[in-house]
Amino acid sequence: MPASEQDFLASIDRHFPNTGPGIALGRGDDCAIIDQAGPLCLSTDLFVEHAHFRRSYFTPQDIGHKALAAAASDLAAMGAAPVGFALSLVLPAAGSSTVDNDVDDAFLDALLSGMAALSSRLALPLIGGDLSAGPTLALDITVLGRPGTSGRLLRRCMAQPGDALVVIGPFGLARVGLLALEIAGRTARDTWPDATNAHLRPEPRLAEGQTLAGFPAVRGLMDVSDGLARDLPRFLGSDAARNAAPLGAELSITAETLHPEVRAFCAARGADPVVEAVLGGEDYALLAAVDPAGLAAVLAALPGALVIGAVTDTPGLRLNGRPFTKAGFDHFG
Amino acid sequence: MPASEQDFLASIDRHFPNTGPGIALGRGDDCAIIDQAGPLCLSTDLFVEHAHFRRSYFTPQDIGHKALAAAASDLAAMGAAPVGFALSLVLPAAGSSTVDNDVDDAFLDALLSGMAALSSRLALPLIGGDLSAGPTLALDITVLGRPGTSGRLLRRCMAQPGDALVVIGPFGLARVGLLALEIAGRTARDTWPDATNAHLRPEPRLAEGQTLAGFPAVRGLMDVSDGLARDLPRFLGSDAARNAAPLGAELSITAETLHPEVRAFCAARGADPVVEAVLGGEDYALLAAVDPAGLAAVLAALPGALVIGAVTDTPGLRLNGRPFTKAGFDHFG
Repeated sequence: MPASEQDFLASIDRHFPNTGPGIALGRGDDCAIIDQAGPLCLSTDLFVEHAHFRRSYFTPQDIGHKALAAAASDLAAMGAAPVGFALSLVLPAAGSSTVDNDVDDAFLDALLSGMAALSSRLALPLIGGDLSAGPTLALDITVLGRPGTSGRLLRRCMAQPGDALVVIGPFGLARVGLLALEIAGRTARDTWPDATNAHLRPEPRLAEGQTLAGFPAVRGLMDVSDGLARDLPRFLGSDAARNAAPLGAELSITAETLHPEVRAFCAARGADPVVEAVLGGEDYALLAAVDPAGLAAVLAALPGALVIGAVTDTPGLRLNGRPFTKAGFDHFG
Repeated sequence: MPASEQDFLASIDRHFPNTGPGIALGRGDDCAIIDQAGPLCLSTDLFVEHAHFRRSYFTPQDIGHKALAAAASDLAAMGAAPVGFALSLVLPAAGSSTVDNDVDDAFLDALLSGMAALSSRLALPLIGGDLSAGPTLALDITVLGRPGTSGRLLRRCMAQPGDALVVIGPFGLARVGLLALEIAGRTARDTWPDATNAHLRPEPRLAEGQTLAGFPAVRGLMDVSDGLARDLPRFLGSDAARNAAPLGAELSITAETLHPEVRAFCAARGADPVVEAVLGGEDYALLAAVDPAGLAAVLAALPGALVIGAVTDTPGLRLNGRPFTKAGFDHFG
């Protein structure tokens, strides 16, 4: 823990410029001020030691990166452009934790550098935050975004029966990475480089989100943070404003479309890679509902996009012709 | 800790309406959406057990109230009108803490009710947030505001030599309350009702802040969260944009202007009440720098306002004719 709040603020200033497009007033006053002439969107994400990450295989840079990446992914999920973020940091201090759990200046510096690198790359400046001592390392990040050039922000619960379900980004890969890291620790990175990287350093898909918002055929969007099996029902849920019934999905996914590390990891354990990919969480892939009439143009604009199925007017998920329930499929337990 | 995230979200929905003026989309999607046609201001405040509060004398309702009050006070400090807030909650869960430290459903319900009552009274709706298990109860609140009818947002570091320093709200009272609570626990409320209430249930002065913003004579504003002695230098600091030298203050404060409980508590301990009031923190009083030419109108509009001194062009604080340094005055240690 830094010796004083002033030392901490100096570290912050070393890593993060205190300015950005549309930021009228950055850090240091009672509030930051954002100059804005239209809608803003906001999301908040906690990233707490033991609940969300382990220091045994997360480097401090990974922690800084992933805390911001997970929060920024909620902007991607709206098709939003970045505005800025606030960071609240609870740092273990001597007296409130074991020495083993303490955060020294080098650790904090590395954490901030991992976060600052992503902040800079995403053009998402740090505009505020707070600091407290506490027993466990915890980060809370609030992100702000605005509509991109399309002027649209994309919501969940906008899908219609017959819409194509399109995923942008690998899915199931971060789950394989997590399982491999839990089994083998950080050395799992040698055997499963892409999977462990997907868990430790997920990439928020802000550019892809804004591209999707540019197509009127894209009716709804979300980011898959808890796995397709849990997030699809949230995506298809009834929209109170539309007063419509909940929808379902017919998924059609072959193992060949999955990342090779997902296939190899599951093959080594006798698990069905398609099922594991549908269960997998923390990939921060984007999930879009696309009007079939405009699907070809969307796919042409996003070469990595994968059609995984279609929206049905009957509730429930079906995978490759069979009803899908988590209980019946969770081999890893 | 609630049995599931769904139970938690149901509790939230029982206490907080999911709508508000200017809120295009509330909780439940990847982001909330704020409809806004001008600047927004944002601030974040942590409220962590042991660092900021003790459950031995804070009721759950007090915790919910004060976490939101402290955050909302940063909006008052800009002269802003409320837009909405996000709540991130870290709840002790069985397994990550002693039973003694656990948060049961009744405690959480009471905490949310204390917060909801203030949220409703301030017209500051809950528009987002996050939940995690963790070893200690911690709240992180991000507030959003916009300019009120005046169109102005007031910053720090805008004072000019000769400006009157005006405080709105009692100061020193919450410090007396904290000391009394630390000595006698919750029974201190019987002897020091106003002081303990000032510490447990501070009132964010949003209406007064917006009134102040309506007077062009009010050049700068902040909320006094760490005590006048620590916050005044921050308020008078050099503004990088103005490229001006730091200023000082000549304070003139008599004991008669202080709250009777501050006088009585200090009299019982042989302490100087004026010095203790200047050191006192967590009052969330507002501190304004006012052009003397417009002072009378400001004071007429805010009957409780107190002129405590004037801005000088030499750095440093003077109190009643003597240089003021914290080290020389901190009797309670």
